Amino acid sequence: MVKKYKKQSPVSYTLGITLTIELLNTKISQVTRVFVHSKINITDSFKYIESKCRENNIPLIYSNKPFNILSRKGNCFIIGEFKKSDSKLTKTANHVVLVNPSNAGNLGTIIRSMVGFNINNLAIIEPAVDIYDPNCIRASMGSIFHLNFEVFTDFKDYYKKYNNRNYYPFMLEAKENISRTELNGQFSLIFGNEATGLNSDFLNYGTPVIIQHSNNIDSLNLPIAVSIGLFHATKNNF
Amino acid sequence: MVKKYKKQSPVSYTLGITLTIELLNTKISQVTRVFVHSKINITDSFKYIESKCRENNIPLIYSNKPFNILSRKGNCFIIGEFKKSDSKLTKTANHVVLVNPSNAGNLGTIIRSMVGFNINNLAIIEPAVDIYDPNCIRASMGSIFHLNFEVFTDFKDYYKKYNNRNYYPFMLEAKENISRTELNGQFSLIFGNEATGLNSDFLNYGTPVIIQHSNNIDSLNLPIAVSIGLFHATKNNF
Repeated sequence: MVKKYKKQSPVSYTLGITLTIELLNTKISQVTRVFVHSKINITDSFKYIESKCRENNIPLIYSNKPFNILSRKGNCFIIGEFKKSDSKLTKTANHVVLVNPSNAGNLGTIIRSMVGFNINNLAIIEPAVDIYDPNCIRASMGSIFHLNFEVFTDFKDYYKKYNNRNYYPFMLEAKENISRTELNGQFSLIFGNEATGLNSDFLNYGTPVIIQHSNNIDSLNLPIAVSIGLFHATKNNF
Repeated sequence: MVKKYKKQSPVSYTLGITLTIELLNTKISQVTRVFVHSKINITDSFKYIESKCRENNIPLIYSNKPFNILSRKGNCFIIGEFKKSDSKLTKTANHVVLVNPSNAGNLGTIIRSMVGFNINNLAIIEPAVDIYDPNCIRASMGSIFHLNFEVFTDFKDYYKKYNNRNYYPFMLEAKENISRTELNGQFSLIFGNEATGLNSDFLNYGTPVIIQHSNNIDSLNLPIAVSIGLFHATKNNF
């Protein structure tokens, strides 16, 4: 009745009680089932999940089997199942664009920072890790349910569709120091893959910027570079 | 001849070729042995390690056994062994202080950002994860070899010893917004544990600051909070 999660699967999963509560609070119409392990403690959090499911006719299924299939960690006693859905980016909003992100944990951490800084629109350029990978959902701490995202096979497709904005590709080859750059108008912050960064074609788009650092490291970790970009870009809003 | 790494062990390990090169380039006098797996490719990087070891009388040991004991990942074919050492913080430098950090990967990522922003002095307040955990060394990408660090059993011990400075505890209860705070003089950026943050005692030290974010997340991920603090604190140096 439950299979190991795959990218092609029409549903994905929230592993754990906090994530499942966030799912029920934000995307209740997409929730299909909630699984309960026999080791669950009857806390107020669990009672909240129970009543939410009852009110909304969501089956609560008491079985340990899904936990063996979906969760490798021993301390997960609630799993939510929900229908995956597409979304479109908001044209009039600021965006983050990730070109070829490869790590589910990193992607989830980036989403957590985006939602933290109120940039809730993410374009993903393939090949890329699956945003609905349960490890990404977990690393996002549930913030993924506050996000619009759209997947493109090529950056040019994104560029054609969302052309009413200023592009800021983050690149080690860039000359402009982000900390001395005031971001103008509606913007897209663009980042490359964890290992390879953006290729030099991106020097031709908008205003390439760099987060300057010492020569004692090769680069900053990707979620950290994105989060510094977000902090700088939104600091007048907080 | 090699045991599973423990905190009490007098030596630690660099897992992989890039890390081992960084070790040999920065801490050669501490290196005791280098292990080579039978699947190693004879690349220029390997030849460099070989010649460095020969020049410095460091035994190169061809054996797969240490890899089974020390490395769970399949793609590690070089391991460096080195003597752990203590260091003292530089009194006239800026510091980061981590109170009860609990995750080795997070600690390594924080060190990578510190070295990236030229803040090379780290105080760790126990209980805390072991900085020489091979997972911390790996997450630091070798930047740990550019770091001074000192471990304290109590924040007050750090505070007594390094009192010539301005303290900035990062706390959700703080009123001062970091993005509008110019950091003065010599500083210490202070951060709490991943799950619990700093306790409210820290409101009494220096200038408590907050990285403001939306209500849709509980907090930023710790390495991200530290890195944003470092970026802001050092932006006039880059």
